[in-house]
Amino acid sequence: MADRVLVTLDGEVRDADAPLLHADDFGVLRGDGVFETLLVREGRARTVELHLARMAASAEAAGLPEPDRDEWRLAIELAVDQWGKDREGALRLVYTRGRETGGDPTAFLLVTPVAARVGAARRDGVSVVSLERGFSVDLASKAPWQLLGAKTLSYATNMAALRHAESLGADDVIFVSSEGCVLEGPRSTVVIARGRTLLTPPPAQGILPGTTQQALFEVADQHDFTARYETLRPADLVVADGVWLVSSVALAVRVHTLDGHPLDRRALVGEVEELVDLAVDTVD
Amino acid sequence: MADRVLVTLDGEVRDADAPLLHADDFGVLRGDGVFETLLVREGRARTVELHLARMAASAEAAGLPEPDRDEWRLAIELAVDQWGKDREGALRLVYTRGRETGGDPTAFLLVTPVAARVGAARRDGVSVVSLERGFSVDLASKAPWQLLGAKTLSYATNMAALRHAESLGADDVIFVSSEGCVLEGPRSTVVIARGRTLLTPPPAQGILPGTTQQALFEVADQHDFTARYETLRPADLVVADGVWLVSSVALAVRVHTLDGHPLDRRALVGEVEELVDLAVDTVD
Repeated sequence: MADRVLVTLDGEVRDADAPLLHADDFGVLRGDGVFETLLVREGRARTVELHLARMAASAEAAGLPEPDRDEWRLAIELAVDQWGKDREGALRLVYTRGRETGGDPTAFLLVTPVAARVGAARRDGVSVVSLERGFSVDLASKAPWQLLGAKTLSYATNMAALRHAESLGADDVIFVSSEGCVLEGPRSTVVIARGRTLLTPPPAQGILPGTTQQALFEVADQHDFTARYETLRPADLVVADGVWLVSSVALAVRVHTLDGHPLDRRALVGEVEELVDLAVDTVD
Repeated sequence: MADRVLVTLDGEVRDADAPLLHADDFGVLRGDGVFETLLVREGRARTVELHLARMAASAEAAGLPEPDRDEWRLAIELAVDQWGKDREGALRLVYTRGRETGGDPTAFLLVTPVAARVGAARRDGVSVVSLERGFSVDLASKAPWQLLGAKTLSYATNMAALRHAESLGADDVIFVSSEGCVLEGPRSTVVIARGRTLLTPPPAQGILPGTTQQALFEVADQHDFTARYETLRPADLVVADGVWLVSSVALAVRVHTLDGHPLDRRALVGEVEELVDLAVDTVD
């Protein structure tokens, strides 16, 4: 089995160790494109339709041609088939504005092993620092050019925030708005439990809609949970009955420490993780 | 003469129409890298040392290994030599975190023809809309992970702002902070004249330090101008004796309209453009 699988949207399987992109691809010159990351488990990519819908929304926000979902579905099947059934993988869908010299957008799929940190996070949970994102919760509606609800390739500040957290001895980050509202992680959605109610901040507050959080919310009421969107402040996290960073590959990762404070209430820990597992098994 | 010149930092001249980058380069997967754009004119790259200094500062902010300036100087000479003396070019220096699988950073240089819009902007000036950047002028000092003073490859929102301006019938953008302070253009520094004083907002307000503006400020006092950094508001632009978007390739582009208001005071128009021309001839 190959260590990484690379497929282009035209359905060609490529050598992942051969160069693919031109030096003048807007994806690299300007981080100008969109992407998705899906979990591949037991030979199946998870929540494909939620990811394709979000990619289409991101593409629209970024002024890219609408992705052809049938083409992407076929290419996803091909990539997953090449990856096999025996191990988990992280499947990236990448869609850039293409070359500066013109032509079609660049579109490819890359499957790689799940990062080692993911296994540790799933098992042990994570410590998190809150960092200021610098803008107000109402910026997204006033300033569409900020692309706040789009998953673009311009992730340099997200990566810098994670390095900053690491320098403070923490594993991950929760961004807060200039008013002190909880937003999201650099690569995850924040979900908390208050009793059997699951809460996450409204995407309209400048947050990327979370595909895995959406899948969780879809199945919640069949399992005796209520789920809803609500403005959250850091204090809500401290008194919650559980705080998770929810994402496609790591799934539900428990936050055990926030800004140095242990989050001790654990009544629902384990149950929510299992429910996310179930959600990505059943929701497409 | 080649239509584009591609050189890698190891000193190899490459075919610009052959793929160079791997699908898992962090430059494309996350816009995780830094860049510079230099003007090539009469067989010489302009303000090379200012650009290399800024690239080093950007790399430090982004946690990339310090660029070897001697290596870059040699590669710049090679690229410019390949490009020739007979036409202007835009020389991009691109430096990414490299492949996800590890290894060295990715580093290459690309020379391309100057975009057609640049000629029109130099000749006719531009109309500009002010757009909210969404954060405060003091964010840069509080939140280094926002990389506000670094020229990273994560330029998707800058490109989206330019598309937004175009949809409003304008040529370019000036960003303002959440307090209403003038910041910068998506690819330029704002410089205004108040009498014979040239003013630009302080880089500490979350602005990329402008190499061409720095070169202009270096020569200003030899030409009977005073130059200094000062907080500016849109009203300061409306009553100024000239407003320019200053950048490496377009040089000084006069703003003739701001948010639909004609900027009529033109006493210094022409003189500042010539001074910027002179600055990039003489300052390294």
